[in-house]
Amino acid sequence: MLTEPEDILPYSFDGTAALKVKPGAVLFPLTGEEVAACVKLARAAKVPVVTRGSGTGLSGGSVPLEGCLVLCLAQMDKILEVDEKNLTLRAQSGVITKDIDDAAGKVGLFYPPDPGSMKISTIGGNVAENSGGLRGLKYGVTRDYIMGLQVVLADGTLTTLGNKCVKDVAGYSMKDIFIGSEGTLGIITEVMLKLVPKPKARKTMLALYDSMEAAAETISAIIAAKIIPCTLEFLDRMTVGCVEDFAKIGLPTEVEAVVLMETDGHPVVVEEEAAQMMALARQHGAREVRAAADDAEATRLATARRSAFSALARKRPTTILEDVTVPRTELAHMVKFIREVADRHKLMVGTFGHLGDGNLHPTFLTNERDHEEMHRVEEALEEIVTETIRLGGTVTGEHGVGLAKKAFVKRQLGEASYELMRSIKRALDPECLLNPGKIFDL
Amino acid sequence: MLTEPEDILPYSFDGTAALKVKPGAVLFPLTGEEVAACVKLARAAKVPVVTRGSGTGLSGGSVPLEGCLVLCLAQMDKILEVDEKNLTLRAQSGVITKDIDDAAGKVGLFYPPDPGSMKISTIGGNVAENSGGLRGLKYGVTRDYIMGLQVVLADGTLTTLGNKCVKDVAGYSMKDIFIGSEGTLGIITEVMLKLVPKPKARKTMLALYDSMEAAAETISAIIAAKIIPCTLEFLDRMTVGCVEDFAKIGLPTEVEAVVLMETDGHPVVVEEEAAQMMALARQHGAREVRAAADDAEATRLATARRSAFSALARKRPTTILEDVTVPRTELAHMVKFIREVADRHKLMVGTFGHLGDGNLHPTFLTNERDHEEMHRVEEALEEIVTETIRLGGTVTGEHGVGLAKKAFVKRQLGEASYELMRSIKRALDPECLLNPGKIFDL
Repeated sequence: MLTEPEDILPYSFDGTAALKVKPGAVLFPLTGEEVAACVKLARAAKVPVVTRGSGTGLSGGSVPLEGCLVLCLAQMDKILEVDEKNLTLRAQSGVITKDIDDAAGKVGLFYPPDPGSMKISTIGGNVAENSGGLRGLKYGVTRDYIMGLQVVLADGTLTTLGNKCVKDVAGYSMKDIFIGSEGTLGIITEVMLKLVPKPKARKTMLALYDSMEAAAETISAIIAAKIIPCTLEFLDRMTVGCVEDFAKIGLPTEVEAVVLMETDGHPVVVEEEAAQMMALARQHGAREVRAAADDAEATRLATARRSAFSALARKRPTTILEDVTVPRTELAHMVKFIREVADRHKLMVGTFGHLGDGNLHPTFLTNERDHEEMHRVEEALEEIVTETIRLGGTVTGEHGVGLAKKAFVKRQLGEASYELMRSIKRALDPECLLNPGKIFDL
Repeated sequence: MLTEPEDILPYSFDGTAALKVKPGAVLFPLTGEEVAACVKLARAAKVPVVTRGSGTGLSGGSVPLEGCLVLCLAQMDKILEVDEKNLTLRAQSGVITKDIDDAAGKVGLFYPPDPGSMKISTIGGNVAENSGGLRGLKYGVTRDYIMGLQVVLADGTLTTLGNKCVKDVAGYSMKDIFIGSEGTLGIITEVMLKLVPKPKARKTMLALYDSMEAAAETISAIIAAKIIPCTLEFLDRMTVGCVEDFAKIGLPTEVEAVVLMETDGHPVVVEEEAAQMMALARQHGAREVRAAADDAEATRLATARRSAFSALARKRPTTILEDVTVPRTELAHMVKFIREVADRHKLMVGTFGHLGDGNLHPTFLTNERDHEEMHRVEEALEEIVTETIRLGGTVTGEHGVGLAKKAFVKRQLGEASYELMRSIKRALDPECLLNPGKIFDL
């Protein structure tokens, strides 16, 4: 147990800007039973519990409350079983996401969800946040790969939900209520994941555009051609500039949009789809389209995309990463709207994200000490959120609500649906012991 | 509104054997608003509400309570929107499942969940039961295609959950709690479905076996070869006999197992996978393996499989259709176990189901008026359920709990998980107005 101020410091924040609160103590349980014991003790002492993995969250979901107990599950890092025949993998919740996919890969299988932070994020954190990733369009998100969970409830009960069966309708799907609940309903201690066969081939392509509209039109044309690529990512001009500054991989910096496209599957299908996608990109105004020469180049391009956030974050003292998501058809409009808002408020905003999913990450490069500028950031965010909701979108596509999106969630969901959510919290955690104040206030 | 005894009669039962209770009245609302108004009236009058679509359910989920109000949503049958660009379809909940897929097909898209009853079942019923189908192995179940729902809550509030966004983590996934809740938490009045591109090719094959074990080994070999076919169905000897009697399509009746295999997707992949699957079937002891000559034959074979339940049901006065599901690796053992139990209790049992999903439908052909035989049926069911739970399976893979599986569900879930489910019911329907007594008693 850590209680000394200097030891506790690293557990007082996560990946979200400008949020830092010191907990009372940090514990490192090793099993579900130990987590259950911790919760019982905390409950008896009426001390709130905030759970965390690696702390890569981007909505403040694992930022502590003053004096609370932090349970850090990072040492619960055992892969318990890879069941090749039933296509499942069972692991403790502190296992690093990439280690899950690596373990699956050893037997020719694949765990598709790939959040940007997959090299350091934990699988338990992914489940708590229902993390997305770069392959969402074709492969879905974390929820789509959860067959079962071991969960510690607010009263300290340890229970298992779900099983290895491909179909199961025995009662309500309770595991689904914990997936994406951000640590407010229970603590995920073990996961049973679904795996799929590893695609035999993959092809990565790059398309460069002089206008964002042309890039968005390409995406629509690809979907209209009944192709569902595994990845359709984009970086805008400012993001490309920062990435190139940071990683120096030879990306052209004078274009309006760089689109990274990837298709995977059977080699014949991959070749055919890749050719079609490149032709469609050209037809819709791409200035240049090319395929990665080899795996090394494909990895370099994907790494460039993954480094977008870090690259942008180097520019100014404070980085505010947004996560608005709109129906795919509203994408071009939304990107344009964000740029106009940024210009009008004289703000530095780089946008990147998942084009195929309509999931945008406008990233505000600012300085939290400059109150006047921060005020403009808030006004800009307000406008972006209002437009997102008007378009039938969501204020968070993959980062979660946590503390960062609390102010917006009721507006998106509406009164009835918001109250429904709160009634679930009251039913499962009546004393508000688990991660209080996240998502909503009771 | 229907209130006359002879008018009400057709609404006093569903597809489940031996369950019949007359409601007080039957109403046919046309919109979500009308459903909400009905619920408010029923609540004021303290009259329970049981919702139904076509009444094809196989667990008694829509069997009324004495004197209750039945809301039949079959006339809410409008497809409201097919959004080709966002790959979504919005429909009222009384639309027939097959009509959904047909509407998708017109724009080159596909709605994969295909419960056996898809020609007459309603989409709302499918969502309430989280229906499976023949394509579960590759394409998943109804839950996997629900992006949003319009729901009437127990207090008569009409609310919308979810949206057209591919990713959305703004709060708990409330739609997931209504999917599979069997009408006990809210009434589904509208659905927003995810569609996928229609596979370009499909190939149907038939393999005949002298032993069930050999059939199960083939399935394991196909999965080990990293092939995920869309369909892997089987019929045992008794089922094949009944189907052939009924449909006369030329199936051989002297084999132990008929396996229907289907792969779909890109034509090249389909040819390659079909060849591999046929080779694996031969290597694992299939007596005969052949591909359907054309679409007409493929449809005939699929129809034969879909008619299994009706064909068996003709044999004896009462048909009790089970729905146990086990992890795929336990399948051969479970089929053998069921046969031994049937023999020991001298019962007529035909088994068919979804081999790839581990989802078995042992079907008891019996007579509810013969109390001695019914007693033996109950003993046999008890043994099958006990073994299913021991193997880490579920008492219902796709039919739901309803009234039929109520006695077993607590044993499967365990105390903590069962109580968790009840706490959700208490939170969302504290007066127990909606479909009381289904899944569990409060």
